[in-house]
Formats: sequence, structure tokens, C-alpha cells
Amino acid sequence: MPTFRLTIEYDGTRFSGWQSQPGGIRTVQGALEEALATVLRFPVRIQGAGRTDAGVHALGQVTSFDAETEISPERFVRSLTALVRPEVAVVDAAIAPPGFNARFDSTGKHYRYYLLPRGAPSPLYRHMCLFIPGRFDPGRMEEAASMMVGEHDFAGFRASDCERKTTRRTLYELTIGQEAGLVCVDVKGDGFLKNMVRVIVGTLVDIGRGRLHPDIVQEVFRTGDRRMAGPTAPARGLVLREVYYPSGWIRERKDPS
Amino acid sequence: MPTFRLTIEYDGTRFSGWQSQPGGIRTVQGALEEALATVLRFPVRIQGAGRTDAGVHALGQVTSFDAETEISPERFVRSLTALVRPEVAVVDAAIAPPGFNARFDSTGKHYRYYLLPRGAPSPLYRHMCLFIPGRFDPGRMEEAASMMVGEHDFAGFRASDCERKTTRRTLYELTIGQEAGLVCVDVKGDGFLKNMVRVIVGTLVDIGRGRLHPDIVQEVFRTGDRRMAGPTAPARGLVLREVYYPSGWIRERKDPS
Repeated sequence: MPTFRLTIEYDGTRFSGWQSQPGGIRTVQGALEEALATVLRFPVRIQGAGRTDAGVHALGQVTSFDAETEISPERFVRSLTALVRPEVAVVDAAIAPPGFNARFDSTGKHYRYYLLPRGAPSPLYRHMCLFIPGRFDPGRMEEAASMMVGEHDFAGFRASDCERKTTRRTLYELTIGQEAGLVCVDVKGDGFLKNMVRVIVGTLVDIGRGRLHPDIVQEVFRTGDRRMAGPTAPARGLVLREVYYPSGWIRERKDPS
Repeated sequence: MPTFRLTIEYDGTRFSGWQSQPGGIRTVQGALEEALATVLRFPVRIQGAGRTDAGVHALGQVTSFDAETEISPERFVRSLTALVRPEVAVVDAAIAPPGFNARFDSTGKHYRYYLLPRGAPSPLYRHMCLFIPGRFDPGRMEEAASMMVGEHDFAGFRASDCERKTTRRTLYELTIGQEAGLVCVDVKGDGFLKNMVRVIVGTLVDIGRGRLHPDIVQEVFRTGDRRMAGPTAPARGLVLREVYYPSGWIRERKDPS
């Protein structure tokens, strides 16, 4: 039975997140599983690499599933997208190595958060950025960001109801850049706790605004106290850009058998 | 009586263009004039630099008006935006030199058109790009674009119902670039006929697709025959980015009296 790997883009604005939920709640996974059942003519459960929160977007979410079918990856791109558009699209499909699991085989992820520090909100990018009126200094954010890179205990940088026991994670990169007139915060790491990226960004934004001192980062690492960090930044500014896999998986993906 | 200059951003998706129209038709100019009347407590007619078509967006539309008021430019940014958001925002306001007219004093404009040549449409950018499935060669577009730069008779590159008598215009720049994963076509020139940017882009896209040969550009210039050019590209991919003024206007704008 072949294993498929799909790369998914979505506008998360009107979804209650990635993960399927009972009771007719609209989720990206639910929409994709419904479309897959239509195309395959039997139900299948898919595995997503990242369970993005309600309102979070993706340019490169990855999902996997096994199905006994002759349908080609190329046909999945077209036929699934036709059923889930315009808010979701399958941008790539491939046959994966046997047993590939998008979630458990992932070795890391790249998120980007968009900020708009200026006097007026943006009509064109309003669904995908956080508007920051008033005083704002990206340089202060950079100072704090550099302290977060590396392996740390991120217990204080996560949702207060996150129940994960192991809270050490490694950030490969945390940089401030520019894209299309917006300030963007790139976060790459080996794994993320619940709301971790949004609490990191909310803390950086409060530092940029002068409400917190950059040294707060060390204090939150030392104490693990969520209340010392900044607020959870809104979901709409966050995009899951890429999911990382061991290079072997990627090579096989480009050369399906 | 002071003259004001406002810089406007809008998502044109749900507007019937810039220009006010009778009969309750929703336009950006109409929305701004209604908000201005609320703020000023008297009606005022505003002048827009570019009368963008239905569905076309702007990051830097410029508009001017004269009004006997003590309201500061900074307050116009906040109070007008509060009334026209979220699809429109006043991103900058300033007192202009006496007699400044956003339309007639303009010396040129910069438009950007976004293309998405890949296998699936984009959920996140669906309101602001043209999806191009299938074979596409941006290199062919560049060859044709270089032939359009400079002063030419653009009679064949405009809406067939455009009634302008003088059809010579100068393109300062026509380049193909990248932004946020999209291909973008930057068009800068001293003036534009009705639908001119959209016909230029529609022609370039047909050349990139291999449906037209780059030499068609010379043929359309020679004959002025609209039917030889490509289709009018959809409005949603087009953004008015900037309006140019003589440097004196700009200097005064930054140092209002």
C-alpha cells in the first residue's frame, strides 16, 4: 500500500485550526479528509506535521496517509485542490518512502510571523499580520532574539495549559527580516510547544515596544514562569512555512518509485 | 484654506474601483468622501491620482482636497482610517503646497502585478495574484518587456473603448522580479491609458506561456491593433504602489507649514 506525502497551503482565517474535531467544526484536516474520501471513495485518516492553532496559516504544511489506490500524485494535486479551494490548496504531492509519517519523521519546522509597525493597519495584508501602532524598535527585538537561539528550557514560553513534560527545545534560528513591506520574524527549530512561537513573538513585540527589557528572556528561561513573558501574539500573523525531514526522505520524495 | 494630501492603501476586491459613481455603487473615493464628511462635518470632493479599475488594489494611491479645518494631518490618519477600515486605510497625511492636485501634478506611477506560475492556486495570496497553471517561461517575458521600455505609441495596449486622443507614453521601467514567492511585474511610467498595465501584463503572460511570440510587441506598436495583443489581465493581480511628484512637492510634504 503506497504512502503519500502532500504539501498544503492554507489561509487559516476561517478554520478552527488544523486538527479534526467532532461536531461539524471546520478544520483544515477535516476539509482535506472529506475531499480525500470523495476522490478515493473510501475514508482515510491523514497525519499532519504540525497541529496549527485556529487562525494560523501555512505555506508548507506536510501531511501523510496510506491508501490502496492507483491515483497518481499529480492527480491528487488537481482533484483535491478543486474540492478544498479557495482557502486550502495541495501545492505538491509525492509517493513517500514506505512508513513515512509527516508528524513523527519531522526533524523541525520553520515559522514566519509578520508584523506591521506603522501608523495605520494594512488592508491588503490584514489577514496575515499584527498591526503595531506607536513606538517600536526592531533593534531591541534582535537583541532579545539572539538570546533565544540554541537549546533552552522553553517552559515559560508556551500556553499555560500545555501539558508537555519535556520542555527543552532547540531554536536553530530566530531572525528579524523584511518581506513585502512587513517586518517578519523567522523561527526555525527542532520542535515547538503549544503556542510557543506566538509567546516568543508576543514577548519580542513587547520588547520592541519598550514594555519589557530584553533581559526578560533570561529571566523566563531561569524561572520557567509564563507570566513574566509577553502576551500570546494573535494567530493571524503566523505562517507555517516549511517542515524539515531527514535528507533521505527528501531525496526519495523527489524521485518517487 | 489648506490643501491636504493623503496616501491611501486599499484592498480593491469588493470595490467598484476608485472613482465615485452615482446610485450607491461602492467605490473607494465614495467611502473616503463619506468618512471625510463625517470628520469635517461638511462635504468635500477629493481628487485621486489614479482612477483604478474595479478590483485593483493600492498601497500608495494619493488623493488631495482643500478644506477649511484645524484638524491635523495626524488626526486625519486615525479618524478616517477608523471609518473606512478594514478594506481601506489612510497610511499617511500631510499639508501640501497650496493648489496641490494629486492627479494633475503627478509625473508618473509605479504599478506592480503579481503572478503565480505553479501547479496549484495560492490560498493566502488569492485576492492579489493571477494563478498560471501549466508551462510558463519568465525569461520570454523579460525579452518582450525590454522592448516596451521607453517612449512608444501604446494605442494597441489599452481598452478598446479608451477614448484618449494622445496615446504616446513613456515606460521608465518594466522588470520581472520576485516577492513573497510570487513573480512580480513592475511597471513604472509617466502615464497610463485605460487598462494599459493590464493589457501589457496579459500580453507578457501569453508570451511567457508560449501563446504569443515576443516580437508581437513590435507588431502591436506598429499597427496599434488591440486585437493582436494579449488579453486584459484580471484586476486582482494589480497594485498601484506609488505616485510620483516633482521633487519640490515631496520636500514640502515632509516639512508641512
